[in-house]
Amino acid sequence: MPSRPSVAIVGLGLIGGSLALRLNERGYDVRGHARDPQTVRDATDAGITAYADLDTMLSKLPSDAVVVLATPLPAALELLPKIAATTPDSVTITDVVSTKSPLLQAARDAGAAHRYVGAHPMAGTAESGFAAAYAELLDDATWVVTLDGGTDLQRWRQVAALALDSGGKVVPADSEWHDHSVAWISHLPHVLAELLASNVAPQSLPAALAAGSFRDATRVAATRPELVDAMLLGNRAMVVEALESFLDQLEQAAVALKGSESRTLTERGHQHRTEWEAAREAYRRTTHVDLREPDARERLIGIGARGGYLISGPVSDESDVLTALVF
Amino acid sequence: MPSRPSVAIVGLGLIGGSLALRLNERGYDVRGHARDPQTVRDATDAGITAYADLDTMLSKLPSDAVVVLATPLPAALELLPKIAATTPDSVTITDVVSTKSPLLQAARDAGAAHRYVGAHPMAGTAESGFAAAYAELLDDATWVVTLDGGTDLQRWRQVAALALDSGGKVVPADSEWHDHSVAWISHLPHVLAELLASNVAPQSLPAALAAGSFRDATRVAATRPELVDAMLLGNRAMVVEALESFLDQLEQAAVALKGSESRTLTERGHQHRTEWEAAREAYRRTTHVDLREPDARERLIGIGARGGYLISGPVSDESDVLTALVF
Repeated sequence: MPSRPSVAIVGLGLIGGSLALRLNERGYDVRGHARDPQTVRDATDAGITAYADLDTMLSKLPSDAVVVLATPLPAALELLPKIAATTPDSVTITDVVSTKSPLLQAARDAGAAHRYVGAHPMAGTAESGFAAAYAELLDDATWVVTLDGGTDLQRWRQVAALALDSGGKVVPADSEWHDHSVAWISHLPHVLAELLASNVAPQSLPAALAAGSFRDATRVAATRPELVDAMLLGNRAMVVEALESFLDQLEQAAVALKGSESRTLTERGHQHRTEWEAAREAYRRTTHVDLREPDARERLIGIGARGGYLISGPVSDESDVLTALVF
Repeated sequence: MPSRPSVAIVGLGLIGGSLALRLNERGYDVRGHARDPQTVRDATDAGITAYADLDTMLSKLPSDAVVVLATPLPAALELLPKIAATTPDSVTITDVVSTKSPLLQAARDAGAAHRYVGAHPMAGTAESGFAAAYAELLDDATWVVTLDGGTDLQRWRQVAALALDSGGKVVPADSEWHDHSVAWISHLPHVLAELLASNVAPQSLPAALAAGSFRDATRVAATRPELVDAMLLGNRAMVVEALESFLDQLEQAAVALKGSESRTLTERGHQHRTEWEAAREAYRRTTHVDLREPDARERLIGIGARGGYLISGPVSDESDVLTALVF
């Protein structure tokens, strides 16, 4: 096993707290910061070295540490330059925020792009806070670990190893393509669900007739509005782009339907949906990527772009070989 | 119990077959017509008096019979005038097709609007044909029974009684409002699901990241395309109308989102969705409608329009009192 860095987690909410618990049980040197004194006490009780004061935690970090920003996006954007300024260059900075481009930009603005590797574990519940955190939340979680122009491959490997060690699988992707993807597969579906639900008054004929297709199509509209707002606004540029593309396509579908043509729509939708479902069960082969090879970066991005993911990192400090599952 | 009419079911597929089986076990005099000789044999084996020749079945009908059109829409539109022309005026004509306005129009064109009462049992599976039919498919099914300008209330009562006796609940609604409602709660969600699924290539980064919200939002796109086409085109005018209204709203949402405003959308969507879910469990009171009262028609339509439904029909031939559950 490669040697494990110390991990400092800034924010001990649902995701930060679960990551702290998970890495702690896996033998990592984990420290955490929370502003709320009760959270500091709860984390301490759970065996985490927790600090109420961020500067104190940062001042005690070993030089090879990884700092994980686990706050909401606005706080992470504020904290990133501060942490870059007060920790040695050898400290790697990552995050677990669901939108990646704004943080990459913040790292660039702070002259810290070479120290920054974004991450996004696709995990969550309707609950929040350290009280709701538990290590198993991260079981089999899909983590996007971002690989952009300025990303250092050894730091990338360090963050990918954290995700793998926490029980996840790692999808390599650049920040923009990540944000574009989640706009289509999560944020746009939320917008459609909200709008569809808005059109059915609860005590009405449509409501009485509504069954399976309405129930499924609107399920995520039951999410607390402030959580959906945070998601949509955090990735606003990409959501608007996806929405405008979808609007164009929907207009074309309306025109076709007026002319009694629906097969183009239904055939393609059916094909993609059934193939998506099948792909999740499909045979996958393994492939290996040696980080020392000149095309390692392109190969990693290519794995993520085709729906593949890493299942294990280097087995020793001397190895740079990662293993991925691909179609 | 009021006396039971003979019921002749034209088409013994999934719905027609299930209705034949259900009414047969409830003691009705049931006859069925199917063009396929194997279906005629299967139905006969299941205890249904089945005819391969439609004219033969029609020529043997008692004068108080109800004919149920249980074919796809195009065949039902062809058959309705033929049946109106070859049966006595005392025979009531209904159907179980999922779009109501075109059949009402066909009845009007045939001068048979006074003999026609549309019906739509909201029930189905992915299977089709008599082999897939079973009586329990109709357990607790929501039936829309249409009440339009020219609808005769005693014939309406006859069809509503059939639906109630088959184990369903009856929502009174006019044909246009029915078609409008299903466009919003079923057909439009199908269009959105197809289009959303179309945008995610099965072996891609978005596909790898897609989870709960994508799965729910696209579930109905797994339906066989020809079934979705039939649904969309059968209710084309209303689907296009709903789609165009949705497009306008989605454009407004995109503009708001560009300006970082999402709360109007998420608040309203959340409220309607959670109230819809709650309404399905909500306390309901009963109300009674006497068909002899002058405002009976308006009261029935009002019950359906506010999401209520009938749970029992008149208890004797002498009574005209129906019982409904309302909010």
